[in-house]
Amino acid sequence: MSEREAGRRERLRATAAANGLDAVLVTNLLNVRYLTGFTGSNGALLVRTGGRDLLGTDGRYTTQAGAQVPDVELLIDRATLPALARAALTGGATRLGYESHVVTVDELRGLEGLVGEAGRAVELVSVRRTVETLRAVKDEFEIEALRRACAVADRALAELAAEGALRPGRTELQVGRELDARMLALGAEAPSFETIVAAGANSAIPHHRPDSTELRDGDFLKLDFGATVDGYHSDMTRTLVLGSAADWQREVYELVAASQAAGRAALAVGADVTAVDAAARDVIVAAGHGEHFTHGLGHGVGLEIHEAPGISALGAGSLAAGMAVTVEPGVYLPGHGGVRIEDTLIVTDDAPELLTLTSKELLVL
Amino acid sequence: MSEREAGRRERLRATAAANGLDAVLVTNLLNVRYLTGFTGSNGALLVRTGGRDLLGTDGRYTTQAGAQVPDVELLIDRATLPALARAALTGGATRLGYESHVVTVDELRGLEGLVGEAGRAVELVSVRRTVETLRAVKDEFEIEALRRACAVADRALAELAAEGALRPGRTELQVGRELDARMLALGAEAPSFETIVAAGANSAIPHHRPDSTELRDGDFLKLDFGATVDGYHSDMTRTLVLGSAADWQREVYELVAASQAAGRAALAVGADVTAVDAAARDVIVAAGHGEHFTHGLGHGVGLEIHEAPGISALGAGSLAAGMAVTVEPGVYLPGHGGVRIEDTLIVTDDAPELLTLTSKELLVL
Repeated sequence: MSEREAGRRERLRATAAANGLDAVLVTNLLNVRYLTGFTGSNGALLVRTGGRDLLGTDGRYTTQAGAQVPDVELLIDRATLPALARAALTGGATRLGYESHVVTVDELRGLEGLVGEAGRAVELVSVRRTVETLRAVKDEFEIEALRRACAVADRALAELAAEGALRPGRTELQVGRELDARMLALGAEAPSFETIVAAGANSAIPHHRPDSTELRDGDFLKLDFGATVDGYHSDMTRTLVLGSAADWQREVYELVAASQAAGRAALAVGADVTAVDAAARDVIVAAGHGEHFTHGLGHGVGLEIHEAPGISALGAGSLAAGMAVTVEPGVYLPGHGGVRIEDTLIVTDDAPELLTLTSKELLVL
Repeated sequence: MSEREAGRRERLRATAAANGLDAVLVTNLLNVRYLTGFTGSNGALLVRTGGRDLLGTDGRYTTQAGAQVPDVELLIDRATLPALARAALTGGATRLGYESHVVTVDELRGLEGLVGEAGRAVELVSVRRTVETLRAVKDEFEIEALRRACAVADRALAELAAEGALRPGRTELQVGRELDARMLALGAEAPSFETIVAAGANSAIPHHRPDSTELRDGDFLKLDFGATVDGYHSDMTRTLVLGSAADWQREVYELVAASQAAGRAALAVGADVTAVDAAARDVIVAAGHGEHFTHGLGHGVGLEIHEAPGISALGAGSLAAGMAVTVEPGVYLPGHGGVRIEDTLIVTDDAPELLTLTSKELLVL
């Protein structure tokens, strides 16, 4: 365990050294977890290019941090960021990196105050999203956690469908709660996010919150949910029909399925994220439904449910082997209903590895 | 609904006007929810002292925001903060408040860039924790939500105890999952935080994460958990003993119970938070266990599980009627076991209102 995290810290250290930094203050808690394995709710990390690293946390986590991160020295102080900054300054740092996309304006003022007290020239340098960029490419341990997270979601849905829990008369809220409970029973730490259950016209709302709406015959039922396992999130959407599917429902469904297949097929090492988005979007635009696909195609997934890379027309960059991403086009017809189909996949040198295995045939229950 | 939130915005508007601000950018999502009722995952609010307010969110939430916040104009733009800042600048704002405890360094750079483009003198002014200060005093609607959140936790624990779910041989993880599932079944939106179940020596770890440790006869069992209802969090800790209690366990328990009662008795309008902490801590210090009470006495609770006011030796300020706070002293004997007893209460002009009603007699199961 600690070897894996030590390797990650070495990669950050190399990047920091290449940028002339003496040390980097990591304050995004998920970045701290990624670099150390520490799962407490308060922690920050000092990574030094020419010295020992230092994990800061408070007294609640002394035991836990010692057990989870035996190979990094601990600094116990409730105010982790200033405590680590002081340690860096005492250690002689003159170029100190900090995460400007996470550090607040007030926190930076605090750091500047400490630098002022140090009485010598110290430069605070933004290292925005450096660790997030490292995190975008998953290692085998992370991919295995994602596989298990996706398998929990697959199985939870299969069990619910097999037991007849997705039937007319039940409410969105009931279905959502059972899905969540089933994922927990199957070993999830938590749902990946607030489970979306959207019946009938609600399925046209991309992020509908489950309410007391009852499932009805002939309705679309859209389920967007995932499980968290070892901190890693799965993300899957399936849309099915209760009773029997009308022609317009089959048409919309087949269109989104074709778009989703095109998006998956475009997942290749080196592919520009805007091109991947376009591959799926073009299918929907060509059918005259461009205006009904109102969001980006997908996103990276890992320790966060949304992380790098973003796959949309406004995205930037290209795919690399080991990236975990979603592909989730949708067509939403306000007042009528909508379809979204979403998988979580791993980009590889060959075809992408599909982690969410639930069938994408239109399921009529 | 909207009247309540409109009143809250008026209070912020009055504060802003008193500080010579033309407008305030609210970016803490919970502050946005408090001021508007909007529950989406992306939103920011512009409150103007001399003009209409503006709620910014992205296209996923157009329908939801329109339904939840019918009385505030919507601005649909994924980049909510710069979009609202542009609207404020176009509207002629020259002193613009922002939440410096939430806005990141990168976001402030973005705002400064927009000000530069405006081509006139505009001052960006910190309004740190202004809305959080308003939020510390709860209105009747909020107190009722807290009552229900506490009632869910009370009932979940009572049911588990009655069904014999807290018995030797079961694991911490099993108990934690059942407690969570029971709270959801009783109407909670989610657990308030990661439920703590700590058996035996684990009870000496203040924030132990439930694992496969089995409950055993003669062990302390510490449960720290809560339910979220309408966005409001409850927080309760109870420590019980399985089988029969040893003398040392009764002694520690009675000490913590006496400390907790002293802390509750000190909750009065105008009381300094350090004095409240001291009232409870003195009892433990006098018994020679000061070093075993390693954290603050309590904290405010509401839309966040930890919010203003902090009740500790390092806190500042005094209590006001309507504040919702926890009182949770603990004594932790490393390697042996620990006791924490925690209630959620409302500060009133009379005695505090106790919201967590589960008995604090030592329960021997």
